[in-house]
This record gives sequence, structure tokens and C-alpha cells, in this order.
Amino acid sequence: MDKSMPDAVTLVEVGPRDGFQFEKSVVPTDRKLSVIARLVAAGLKQIQVASFVHPRKVPQMADADSLIRQLPLKDGVVYTALVLNRRGLDRAVASGIAAVEISLSASDAHSRKNAGMAHVDALDQGLRMIDQAISAGLHVRASVQCAFGCVDEGRIPAARIAGIVRRFVDHGVHVLALADTTGMGSPPLVEAVLDAVLPLAGRSPLALHLHDTRGLGLVNLMAALTYGVSIFDTALGGMGGCPFVAGAAGNIGTEDTAHLLERLGVHTGVDYRRVGAVSREMEAFFQKFFPGRMHRMTAFPPPPESI
Amino acid sequence: MDKSMPDAVTLVEVGPRDGFQFEKSVVPTDRKLSVIARLVAAGLKQIQVASFVHPRKVPQMADADSLIRQLPLKDGVVYTALVLNRRGLDRAVASGIAAVEISLSASDAHSRKNAGMAHVDALDQGLRMIDQAISAGLHVRASVQCAFGCVDEGRIPAARIAGIVRRFVDHGVHVLALADTTGMGSPPLVEAVLDAVLPLAGRSPLALHLHDTRGLGLVNLMAALTYGVSIFDTALGGMGGCPFVAGAAGNIGTEDTAHLLERLGVHTGVDYRRVGAVSREMEAFFQKFFPGRMHRMTAFPPPPESI
Repeated sequence: MDKSMPDAVTLVEVGPRDGFQFEKSVVPTDRKLSVIARLVAAGLKQIQVASFVHPRKVPQMADADSLIRQLPLKDGVVYTALVLNRRGLDRAVASGIAAVEISLSASDAHSRKNAGMAHVDALDQGLRMIDQAISAGLHVRASVQCAFGCVDEGRIPAARIAGIVRRFVDHGVHVLALADTTGMGSPPLVEAVLDAVLPLAGRSPLALHLHDTRGLGLVNLMAALTYGVSIFDTALGGMGGCPFVAGAAGNIGTEDTAHLLERLGVHTGVDYRRVGAVSREMEAFFQKFFPGRMHRMTAFPPPPESI
Repeated sequence: MDKSMPDAVTLVEVGPRDGFQFEKSVVPTDRKLSVIARLVAAGLKQIQVASFVHPRKVPQMADADSLIRQLPLKDGVVYTALVLNRRGLDRAVASGIAAVEISLSASDAHSRKNAGMAHVDALDQGLRMIDQAISAGLHVRASVQCAFGCVDEGRIPAARIAGIVRRFVDHGVHVLALADTTGMGSPPLVEAVLDAVLPLAGRSPLALHLHDTRGLGLVNLMAALTYGVSIFDTALGGMGGCPFVAGAAGNIGTEDTAHLLERLGVHTGVDYRRVGAVSREMEAFFQKFFPGRMHRMTAFPPPPESI
């Protein structure tokens, strides 16, 4: 196991998907496009822009197809969309997007609630979707939700996560991802899961999707960094999270993560001050404070001999 | 340098001082007493209850003398008060409190703003106060503000911090403390400062007072734990912080810290669920959301096979 820190880390911005879909107000397509353009200008190279879910269930994502058609093309920038079922994948293929994330839950309870089917059925369906997406020429990231625990099932055995990951690798996914959907990860748990999963990953890079629900998002990122993990999902301002918990924290913040990595001497290419300006503008749009920290700090001049 | 984690950590609750003094609403003495009693019941053994500052400047702390007279005495529980100048120390001695924190800034700019005198003069005054407090039979913790940077001066040389700490040790303080007043610390900086300071500490234990202003509070705590640091200031709900920054984060949260340490297998003796209940009640009192995370999570039943 590589226990040294990576020199560079890729941040995958998920605010326009994970963040925007958790707010009641629907962001107009033009506004999404402006946010995305500014995130690209801030140095983000991978942005999850939409989720292909039922437009009546998630009206915030109803403009997915139209949004994707209008995305600003730029060399080296990859846009992705989340797909959770076959109907969604069909729409993603038709939309012309080049990369999808196919996601299923390691928790049976969570899978039944969220995807309406048992975990084993979701895995079968997911593998078929992976095959279809690869056949269609898409870049595929396959992700495991609740990889670090579930509020209904508690701890998910690392062997179960490893079993799913092995199937993903067998089906030739391009990138693997583990999501701490509930924010229940902690350093010892992150280490246990990575110990079980990394040896199976082969040449597929592994991404982590961390939530800060319990305040451990960046602590868990530090633990994963020492394992050489070098792809992390982040959301502007730390948006996202649970719609049923007032003031609950969401994803690890893009600005907070980029700032920490800069302090550690790890390259991200992301200017967290520019991301912070977008976050503050979206706070005004949604009329709420986002739970991240650095977007607020970037409203002030930086300290001298900035450290 | 001891690079293994401690088996047990002492949390010093500073919410009733650092937290309450940053809110506009003044908490009535009876309410403070009830909060303190419940923090003791939750397992906290050290609580900073007041600051001896000018009552017109800081009306939130105007009841310090009266509060201290009414504190619930319990074996093994130590109450402390913060003192920043000689007048404050005289009041602390008269109040009958057994332990004080004498605090001064390593930043000249911050010292001039906050204490109205140059850093070198504040150090002279602080050393005389330490002598006086020890003569009066008080338990003395001496702390360095802005030990991890200052928004006006930027990075403070580790040698300057070390110089102050050496004087504190020479004057026989019982506990040393370094405060990340501005939340500008990061793991490499925490390590650099601890490398410079710990060899000088002798038999005086070292406490850290961390703020989460830039989202790195618990990341910095993790770095300090590997140096064997085993005393941390925390505030219920992550209260405290900067009155000039809307929604800015405060101290590291008592619940967040106790929860992390429990997950690491480090003993604190603090029941973070009981602290969380106090935080939620005080959120209602102040009519605002505190920036911590776990106090909100403790409103829900814990996940099964809690991890």
C-alpha cells in the first residue's frame, strides 16, 4: 500500500449536482451555465453537472438534457452526469455527455429506500448499465454509496464493499468511487475500507466522495491521502447534504479542500478564492449560509506573507 | 518527540467563555449555571466559565464574580477564568476561583489592537501576572494567542513562540497553551510549532486552543495528537469565533471532538450526545445555528451497531 501523499489531487466539483439538487429553489439553466463557466475558470477540470432522475421527483435536475447541450467546451475539462437507473442511462446517452457516474448503494436498507430495489438487484442492474455505457463509448465511473456506513444498517462490512468493487473492475469501469453518503466515515474506518478495496482496484483509479455531516470530512480526506488516493469529490461552499436535517453539513467544500491541499503542498490547480466568490453569490441566490468555511474567509483580504 | 497517539485526552470546555462572549445576547447567570451543571454531568472536568474583562466592554462576562461564587462544586472538576490584564487578575484572585488562564498574543499587531500594548510589554506584564497568580496560590495556565498566525502579521516565527514559552516555563506555570486564534493553523504549521515548543515545555503539559475558522480545526487536532498533545479546548456546538464574519466558525466543537476521539479509541469521558442537547438548547436561546456538526446529529437516534 502506498502510504505517501500524492503530489497532485484532482477535485471533482459536484456542487451543481449534489449541491443544487438538495436546495428547494430550482437554479435556472442560464444561472447553472454561468456557475459552471466560473468553476472552469477557477481551475476545476471535472464537474458533475446533472443527475438523470425523474424530473417530477427532482425538478432541480429537470433541465439536465438542455444544460448538457449548452455546456462550455474547453480542452481538458470533463463534465459528468449521475445515473441511477436504466431510464436515466438512456437519457444520458442521448444527451451527448461523455462521462457518467453509475451509482448504487452497499446498504440494502438504503438501496430499497433510494432505488426501490434490494441491494443485490441494484448491483445486477448496475453491472448491466456499466456494460451498456461502455458499449456506448462513455467514460464510466462506478460508485458505491454508503461505503462507510448507513444510518439504518450501521457499519457495512468491508468485504461487501470489496465484493462490489471487484465486480466493477471485472466489468471494466474507468474509475471507481466510494461515497460516504452519510458522513459516518472516520480515519480507522477509511483505512479499513481502503485496505480491503485498493488491492482490488487494479489500474482503475479510486475516487472518494466525502460528506462532512459529522465534521470529519477533511480528517477522512487526510487519512485517504496517506493511502495515495488522489481524486476527491467536493462541492462549492460545502453544499449538499441531507434535506431532513436543518443546517446539516454537505459535501466537503471545494474551497476548504483546495485550501487544505495548498497548505500541504499538494497541487490541485484550483483557485479557491475564485470558487469562494461563486459560493457567496449562490448563498445570496439560495438565501442561506453554506456550511463550508473558506468561501466566507475569501471575502476578506488574505493575511500578509500568506501561509 | 513522541509520535504516538495518547490513550486519553482532556477536553477543556470554553463555550461559556469563548462562546458566550461572542454572542450579542447576554446569557443570564442562572442559565449559565444550568449549562455548566449539564456540561459537568456530560463528563467535562475542566470548564472555562468567565473572562475578567471590563464589564462595559464585554457585558456578556459582567457577572463573572457572581457566577464563580455560585458554581456547582464537584470532585475532580476544575473551573477556570481568563485574565488578560492586572485588574482582571485582581478580580480573579478576589473571586475565589482556583485556576486562571493568563493569555497574551505572539503578534505585535494583535497585541496592540486587543490588549492596547506592544507584544513585548504584554509579555512583561504577563510574566508579572504569572508571578502574582502563583504567589496567590492559583493554578496557572499561560497561553500564547495567534501562535499559528495573525491576520495582520501573517505567519509568526516559531522561534518567537518558543521564546515566550521558555519564559512561561521559567516562571513556573502549571500548564502551557498555544491558541490558533485566527484559525490559520495547518498540519505542517502545527508540526513546525510543536517541534519548536515541545522540547522546551519540560514537565508542563501543553494544551491547544484550536479554531475552525478555515475548516482545519480537527485536521490540526489530528496532527497534534500524533505529537502526544492530550489537552484541547473545545466549545459546545463549535461556538465562538469572529464577531465580524457572518456565519464564521468558532472553536472546535466539544461534540465533534469527543465523537472523533471516540472513533479513534481515545478516551475523553465526555458524552457528546449530552453536550449536543445543551448546544441545541442554546441554539434556541441565541436563535442561530452553531457551526459544529455533531450537536445536530445527536438530535437523531444513533445508527445501529454504532460505529
